[in-house]
Amino acid sequence: MYYVGIDLGGTNVAAGIVDGEGRLLAKASVPCPRGAEPIADSIAQAARLAAEKAGVEVSQARSVGLASPGNIDPEGGVVFHAYNLELDHAPLADMVTQRLGLPALLENDANAAALGEFVAGAGMGHKSLVAVTLGTGVGSGAVLEGKLYTGFNYSGMEAGHTVIHRGGRACTCGRKGCWEAYASATGLIRSTREAMEANPHSGLWRLAPTLDQVNGKTPFDAAQAGDAVAQAVLDEYIEDLACGLANLINILQPEVLCIGGGICAQGENLLAPLRSALNREEFTKDSPRRTKLCVAQLGNDAGIIGGAMVPLYR
Amino acid sequence: MYYVGIDLGGTNVAAGIVDGEGRLLAKASVPCPRGAEPIADSIAQAARLAAEKAGVEVSQARSVGLASPGNIDPEGGVVFHAYNLELDHAPLADMVTQRLGLPALLENDANAAALGEFVAGAGMGHKSLVAVTLGTGVGSGAVLEGKLYTGFNYSGMEAGHTVIHRGGRACTCGRKGCWEAYASATGLIRSTREAMEANPHSGLWRLAPTLDQVNGKTPFDAAQAGDAVAQAVLDEYIEDLACGLANLINILQPEVLCIGGGICAQGENLLAPLRSALNREEFTKDSPRRTKLCVAQLGNDAGIIGGAMVPLYR
Repeated sequence: MYYVGIDLGGTNVAAGIVDGEGRLLAKASVPCPRGAEPIADSIAQAARLAAEKAGVEVSQARSVGLASPGNIDPEGGVVFHAYNLELDHAPLADMVTQRLGLPALLENDANAAALGEFVAGAGMGHKSLVAVTLGTGVGSGAVLEGKLYTGFNYSGMEAGHTVIHRGGRACTCGRKGCWEAYASATGLIRSTREAMEANPHSGLWRLAPTLDQVNGKTPFDAAQAGDAVAQAVLDEYIEDLACGLANLINILQPEVLCIGGGICAQGENLLAPLRSALNREEFTKDSPRRTKLCVAQLGNDAGIIGGAMVPLYR
Repeated sequence: MYYVGIDLGGTNVAAGIVDGEGRLLAKASVPCPRGAEPIADSIAQAARLAAEKAGVEVSQARSVGLASPGNIDPEGGVVFHAYNLELDHAPLADMVTQRLGLPALLENDANAAALGEFVAGAGMGHKSLVAVTLGTGVGSGAVLEGKLYTGFNYSGMEAGHTVIHRGGRACTCGRKGCWEAYASATGLIRSTREAMEANPHSGLWRLAPTLDQVNGKTPFDAAQAGDAVAQAVLDEYIEDLACGLANLINILQPEVLCIGGGICAQGENLLAPLRSALNREEFTKDSPRRTKLCVAQLGNDAGIIGGAMVPLYR
């Protein structure tokens, strides 16, 4: 049995043909246009390309699962708002069904990515997983007791928008002090720039001669080279990141907590101090059963695979 | 069909006979001794008394569900630690089975209380509920998709031990800035005392001439009487309480979030400003579907009813 998975991104529409165990048999991608009709056309085109690569007909697939950014209604298959894609109350699931003749299901992209990791990545063989992605924001999704968890209002697991510093940095959501404002790559870049402005002699300025040149790797590289200001930025970053992870563990006690995003390329530079902070912060730190912290395994394929698997795990 | 529910408290062992719909048919309580053997005896005694009041034999019941404080192993039916009851690795479920001849199940008391509210209280007719109790600490439990949620390590939903003020007040769990340290009745009393020490002319001193006399009602009464210091304490308290509630809503999006504990006797004095804060803080504040905030309905019966219902909702 085949399932089509679609990951709608700002740059590309990525499609994959996935089997019932979550194995990605083939994938293809096309540039992502703007607006509902062109996007639905591109989804159909990407799905057909992926099927061709897999040596199957799209009509042999059982369903299409769409992983979409923005605010969505999974029941109605409608993208309420995805501003950067110029989607506004777009009945995307129906539009894709019209084009491909297959049942189409819509899911939030962070939830789909968590499902992908659960089925075929960091969560394989486990019963529950929380996936956190550190990027422009902090995305999160959960699979609990073997089912994708979305909550009453489908936007369950907006863990990025939980406050860890009440009254702190303004967040895009309107709150102050959200985890996302500190633990995202954007948050780390902001902290790095603030430290540079306060420390004109820091070695950070050698790696990023202007503030615009700071990226998520800059403080790691500067700390590696022995810069104390960069190390202090990272120490605070790890504490903020660990704080939100410990909050999630204390609430949900998932079997696996995986983190993804470009920063995770740091590997043990990031994981070792994080684990040490969690050993101090978890409520069940003395328990024989601990949540396993690891790095997400599927990268950009998580959304495709998770999207495809939505009908089996909703 | 009957189910026995037991709520183990520091003062009393409360027992109830509950039907399959969570209706409490009769209840009885006996003083709670210390140590495993005496406690198991008292549980059996309370269960028999409740059965007698209900006009049934204990042997007609299908099971006994035990709601216990402390650190427990629900699979093995063992209370690892409940220090104030002097229980240490006590195989309480087996001990109760020996005495009553019924299968016995063990559950964390906050989880059992949440299940009680779900089946027979604030969550009746809904699919998911998070229950938060504001007492000495902040207890919490969740029923998600119609099942009691306990997580991989059984201590799921330690929401009191999520940090909202990183680096803030020391918490009993070892973290700094936990929600519990601010939003519990203990936290409110501490804030009130701190404000009194800083404001020797506050009207709070008329209601509580010594710091020992401050209780959870004191700041509400003083604010009602027009004291600005008390009002400022309450304003901060509401913000802290709302902060953690919004965090939980943003993560779990439950259909119902109920709060319990003595402070909830304040009714709209507490709920009106809380709702107004949540209208600002929730990620889905503009959504047609919002989590319903309300006060827990069952009071001390929640643990008995929830304990009894454990075998049906685990």
